[in-house]
Amino acid sequence: MWQDLAHRTREDLEKAGIRLFLKHRALSIYNSEKTVEIIDELERKAFFAYDRLVLATGAAPRRLGIPGIDLPGVFFLRWMDDGLKIKNHLASKRPQKIILIGGGYIGMEMAEAMLHRRLQVEVVERSQLLLKNVYPGFSRRIQTELESHGASIHTDFTVEKIELKGEKLHVIGSKGRPIRADMVLIAVGCLPQTELAASAGIRTGINGAIKVTRRMETNIPGIYAAGDCAETWNRVLNRYTYQPLGTVAHKQGRAAGENAAGGDKTFAGTLGTQSVKIMNLVYARTGLLAEEAVRAGYDPVSSRIETYDHKSYYPGASSLQLMITADKKTRRLLGAQVLGFVGAEISKRLDILATALYHQMAVDELEDLDLSYTPPLSSPWDPVQTAAQAWAQEH
Amino acid sequence: MWQDLAHRTREDLEKAGIRLFLKHRALSIYNSEKTVEIIDELERKAFFAYDRLVLATGAAPRRLGIPGIDLPGVFFLRWMDDGLKIKNHLASKRPQKIILIGGGYIGMEMAEAMLHRRLQVEVVERSQLLLKNVYPGFSRRIQTELESHGASIHTDFTVEKIELKGEKLHVIGSKGRPIRADMVLIAVGCLPQTELAASAGIRTGINGAIKVTRRMETNIPGIYAAGDCAETWNRVLNRYTYQPLGTVAHKQGRAAGENAAGGDKTFAGTLGTQSVKIMNLVYARTGLLAEEAVRAGYDPVSSRIETYDHKSYYPGASSLQLMITADKKTRRLLGAQVLGFVGAEISKRLDILATALYHQMAVDELEDLDLSYTPPLSSPWDPVQTAAQAWAQEH
Repeated sequence: MWQDLAHRTREDLEKAGIRLFLKHRALSIYNSEKTVEIIDELERKAFFAYDRLVLATGAAPRRLGIPGIDLPGVFFLRWMDDGLKIKNHLASKRPQKIILIGGGYIGMEMAEAMLHRRLQVEVVERSQLLLKNVYPGFSRRIQTELESHGASIHTDFTVEKIELKGEKLHVIGSKGRPIRADMVLIAVGCLPQTELAASAGIRTGINGAIKVTRRMETNIPGIYAAGDCAETWNRVLNRYTYQPLGTVAHKQGRAAGENAAGGDKTFAGTLGTQSVKIMNLVYARTGLLAEEAVRAGYDPVSSRIETYDHKSYYPGASSLQLMITADKKTRRLLGAQVLGFVGAEISKRLDILATALYHQMAVDELEDLDLSYTPPLSSPWDPVQTAAQAWAQEH
Repeated sequence: MWQDLAHRTREDLEKAGIRLFLKHRALSIYNSEKTVEIIDELERKAFFAYDRLVLATGAAPRRLGIPGIDLPGVFFLRWMDDGLKIKNHLASKRPQKIILIGGGYIGMEMAEAMLHRRLQVEVVERSQLLLKNVYPGFSRRIQTELESHGASIHTDFTVEKIELKGEKLHVIGSKGRPIRADMVLIAVGCLPQTELAASAGIRTGINGAIKVTRRMETNIPGIYAAGDCAETWNRVLNRYTYQPLGTVAHKQGRAAGENAAGGDKTFAGTLGTQSVKIMNLVYARTGLLAEEAVRAGYDPVSSRIETYDHKSYYPGASSLQLMITADKKTRRLLGAQVLGFVGAEISKRLDILATALYHQMAVDELEDLDLSYTPPLSSPWDPVQTAAQAWAQEH
């Protein structure tokens, strides 16, 4: 049941003392009166009064500014409704070939989902490589993984229009031949929804996201914002970014909510941690790549190792790759990436490095961590420590 | 090949500039002369001179002080030679029923190995529960796991003697009927080997292990000790302990070696991190249990949660349990235990908590960590954060 995807039921929320106004839309904020004008599904308007206000208006899919995105069989990916429409379309039209526009995290997950349905998958990506901000060697390995499961990948392909010719959708790019398919899914990122905030004169910044303090307060005292509609403090970059992720939204929501209720909670900031499963592979990252670190004023150097997830004499060992980026002068860890197989504890291994990064550890100190070891699951030096030792030796 | 179990070959070591004297035994240290008397396999004695000395004499199995431990078919578990003898015995005598004396980590691993060989396994443990220093509920779950794979567990069973009657070995305890088997494996811990150290007047302490500084130096300047023969600094207890583990030995060896070579490296100390795989389960711990924390002068309180390793709507989610122990006053994390299924990233999830513990984090701060999330592998709040939030709410 699609309802199972919700974290909590209506009853859960109401039991917690929250009054829910579903099918109500907020039209405008009148900050001097401390009211919000709302409209319900019968088009009746009303004013709700507030002491403090939290904006959690989220984001909407970035729409390609090209002809054809409204054709039948073309879908964006964001809300539950999108998922239900796609599911209906798959059931009723039985498309055989799917084009995914956008080779980011969501694109990868959709590629996997469609391959599991035994559909033909073609991924179209504007840049040279899948997955932005991933070490190119890892990105190429991920591409190979998708291809080995039957997907076709078209990189360096900028979509100019989508056309319907007969029964087929044609995705037409600046070069190369058009690609034909029965269905097109577009996942090229999202943009914050801030029309409501704008009505109150709330300031926006990066990508149009709402500017907030570390306490998640906007420029208007008493009005907070959190989640995909707001900017995100990055602990490693020491500046605001736009990072519409669930992990970030949860943390920001807590801070905004606690502060709106009279508490005092500072959002600790993101490290840019992300993970994704692509067929048999898991990729995870935290912090900065070398290029990002240079732009942030660091002097980064990187090391990469390939090793086994656990002692190779114990059955089932699989190879994994780790990349460590750190500042040459301070030797402080700046970022890490791990690529390996499902079942090899890749994502939580990366989280050891994310926890180290949170504490601004020097790479040399990583070997001092007392990490767990048993032959089926690790080595006496965990691979994250072997990677740190390699970095320390090389630099 | 059993040789594959060695980390490095003789050639690797010699290539690194190390002169190896295999089949040589050190008899005595003459510290005033800075020489070690050695004897080779032809009984020839000689004196080796040193500037600095590192003792890495390891430990030997703790032998039960009972009759019958030298009977044929009774084995201790420690060195390669033990493994080869056991393997030969299994091949030549084809025992069907094995008794394991000792329900600790090694006992668990041997139980699994013997069950994989489709042998009948009976585990005999002196205390009420398997695995010392494990939360009783987790210990019982581990016992159930072994039993569901066909093992019999006898707790509260103190072995008084082993007898050979006909073809069968009888393990006889203070109460209950004797247990009969074809083979007996004894894994009841180990004791440091320090005769050589004693010859030089080097001081020993806990369990007879060599006393060392944080730089791994003994009471005799210029003589260092590392690994299972030495005491271990514990970062949470703020005192020395005896913890003969591979992870600890590696770190101590680095510090001792670096300092002996003129460097300056402090052993950061252990947190008591350990993990073990038992059939389909993984158990991992770091830091202190409540009882241990009380003895160390803390005011500990614990919380335990049961949740899923990843979003339950995504196929393959499995349940795991986490226990967090922290100081009531300072709210500082003191220890954590995780129990779950193989494949659910249990051991490296525990390592996130071990890294937090290394940094003396307060439990409340754990939710600020930016950990990786993707539906097949975690939740927007990772289970370690959910456990921390539960602790923070309860205390």
